Amino acid sequence: MSDAITGADHVADAAARLEQIRAEAPRIHCITNLAANVFTANVLLALGAVPSLTLAREEVADFVSGSRALLVNLGTLDGERRQAIPVAIAAARQAGRPWILDPVFANRSPGRLEMAAALCGQGPAAIRANGAEVAALAQALRLGEGGARELALAARACVAMTGKRDQVCAGERKAEISNGHELMDKVTAMGCALGAVLAAFCAVESDPFAAAVQALTVFAVAGDVAGEQAKGPGSFVPAFLDALYAIDQETLKKRALIA
Amino acid sequence: MSDAITGADHVADAAARLEQIRAEAPRIHCITNLAANVFTANVLLALGAVPSLTLAREEVADFVSGSRALLVNLGTLDGERRQAIPVAIAAARQAGRPWILDPVFANRSPGRLEMAAALCGQGPAAIRANGAEVAALAQALRLGEGGARELALAARACVAMTGKRDQVCAGERKAEISNGHELMDKVTAMGCALGAVLAAFCAVESDPFAAAVQALTVFAVAGDVAGEQAKGPGSFVPAFLDALYAIDQETLKKRALIA
Amino acid sequence: MSDAITGADHVADAAARLEQIRAEAPRIHCITNLAANVFTANVLLALGAVPSLTLAREEVADFVSGSRALLVNLGTLDGERRQAIPVAIAAARQAGRPWILDPVFANRSPGRLEMAAALCGQGPAAIRANGAEVAALAQALRLGEGGARELALAARACVAMTGKRDQVCAGERKAEISNGHELMDKVTAMGCALGAVLAAFCAVESDPFAAAVQALTVFAVAGDVAGEQAKGPGSFVPAFLDALYAIDQETLKKRALIA
Repeated sequence: MSDAITGADHVADAAARLEQIRAEAPRIHCITNLAANVFTANVLLALGAVPSLTLAREEVADFVSGSRALLVNLGTLDGERRQAIPVAIAAARQAGRPWILDPVFANRSPGRLEMAAALCGQGPAAIRANGAEVAALAQALRLGEGGARELALAARACVAMTGKRDQVCAGERKAEISNGHELMDKVTAMGCALGAVLAAFCAVESDPFAAAVQALTVFAVAGDVAGEQAKGPGSFVPAFLDALYAIDQETLKKRALIA
Repeated sequence: MSDAITGADHVADAAARLEQIRAEAPRIHCITNLAANVFTANVLLALGAVPSLTLAREEVADFVSGSRALLVNLGTLDGERRQAIPVAIAAARQAGRPWILDPVFANRSPGRLEMAAALCGQGPAAIRANGAEVAALAQALRLGEGGARELALAARACVAMTGKRDQVCAGERKAEISNGHELMDKVTAMGCALGAVLAAFCAVESDPFAAAVQALTVFAVAGDVAGEQAKGPGSFVPAFLDALYAIDQETLKKRALIA
Repeated sequence: MSDAITGADHVADAAARLEQIRAEAPRIHCITNLAANVFTANVLLALGAVPSLTLAREEVADFVSGSRALLVNLGTLDGERRQAIPVAIAAARQAGRPWILDPVFANRSPGRLEMAAALCGQGPAAIRANGAEVAALAQALRLGEGGARELALAARACVAMTGKRDQVCAGERKAEISNGHELMDKVTAMGCALGAVLAAFCAVESDPFAAAVQALTVFAVAGDVAGEQAKGPGSFVPAFLDALYAIDQETLKKRALIA
């Protein structure tokens, strides 16, 4: 890491922020896709937060204003979602709440990529994406062969790029988390739910870089625990939610691989 | 309770109506929210009923007319849902089918609250809500500091108010069910699914008060059983569906806490 | 069966095609219903394929063109879905990709039945339906008392009719698969997910009849395995996904009942 904070510091902070989420039960509003709604809500509840999911333009601003962070996931980007997103972001900015962008599958559709690129200019606190999505966004934003670091600088946001190892970049800072389990790729909306967890940590931690390292660590360590118990991707899901619900500082200390 | 029916009577009736649901497999149409569709359908199937979920205005009346009860849950109240709800309620009323109102999160959005309050005047057989939603509705309907009892009188409906203890009110009658498990609050759409179970009991039991006591008892006892087996909110979900599928008169007798 | 292929041949082919899916990870685009999105995506991931689910007319053609097969499931047939379906089918046909029709609950709504009947003329590679849906379609297409065989001839498609025994018909060929477990009827979107598995096999097997026999066998054998482990419909779901993820030629050989 390029600053003086060590992995052990991040682990202690992650445990403290997790306790804060459990104590304060922050409301997190999520605009997310058809495959992600239920799992995202259950992940937030297991974490200790309170999810809401409405897309209706008549009410989305009320829900966002009453929440402490907003997730904007671009999956299954239909008419209702296209209308809800600008209203929700405007409400979050007006209320001074952080919002998280997840440009899921932006590499699969030019129209979705264009929207994702435009949203990078709307002040997201953090962007959660995989390598293919970051590469597509970098190209759309004319950042050349740029990766997570260049995207973070261009969007003035923290970028949490998930993959075999997760990378977090913000300005000149970076960190890498090496936890997680291969079954996480065999469950739909796993990455989408991580975006919501990132929003929950941003609700209680004002530094998006720190929030991202904490969120990704907690999420990936829960994945480790669940992966050891699961017999396959089906039993992984309940095991993951149970692990997230039970995770504590001791487990984080023992398992977290932050560099 | 203000009438002569005892808890034991309710338990015997609940078991009998449950057997009737399993034998007759009543079709229940549910207009419900993005977080609740799948779990609601699986809960109804585990109970023995046959769910349908369409929101499309072109076909919702066909599905409601062919069903024995209707659930109207106001979650994620987007354009499709706003258009579907009056069509579905009109079809239920024309066919003489009971319909259940679940004003979920009506306390979070003035627009949703206004709609919920208006729907209280459309003849729901029962209203399923938590304390915050009942309080918001009571205020919107100018019932002062009114609670479940006042709402039940104003809407001429049975009110099933869920919480640490569940209360059922209709006219001068009331009952309290004390079963359930704390993990039920950590799973999304648990209350929403209860609304569908209430609809299923209303399909086979013409007295909404009795139906509500039966539905809430069966649901909360299944929660008790599942809570004893679950390691957290993830494993609670399959355990709950298994418990609901297997529940019988003996389990109800042993566990039900109705006053 | 009316051709020289035996059950053992089908089993060997099913295992080979399954390995191909796992190796190639074909993208499968699914337009499916509100109850089926998540389970369908998780079934495809457990199988080894890569699902996408968008309905948005602005992007659905991009996703279908980049996929190797398309599923069109007519459940919860709202405005977004009605607009997406013709765009998606046109994109699949233009790209030379097979598409699968699932006319779920077409027997419950005249409007949905009319649409299903019209889509039978749009060149589906296969149709996945239960007995009631096949009967309704046969009547709508004026095939008299026709069943799966007549529908297959009229639509020039393979028909996979699921029930206690699954039947596959295409032209003069037919096969019957007798695997499966009664809990499969107690889980929502089980049949809908089978439609997606059929699409995945059609992505790697150019003969829809062979693809259907393989898909239905793999799916029903996974159901057998899961049914033996499950305590009810709740625990059946993770057990089924685990079984599908782990299924191999040996298990298929030992269990498959194809005639």
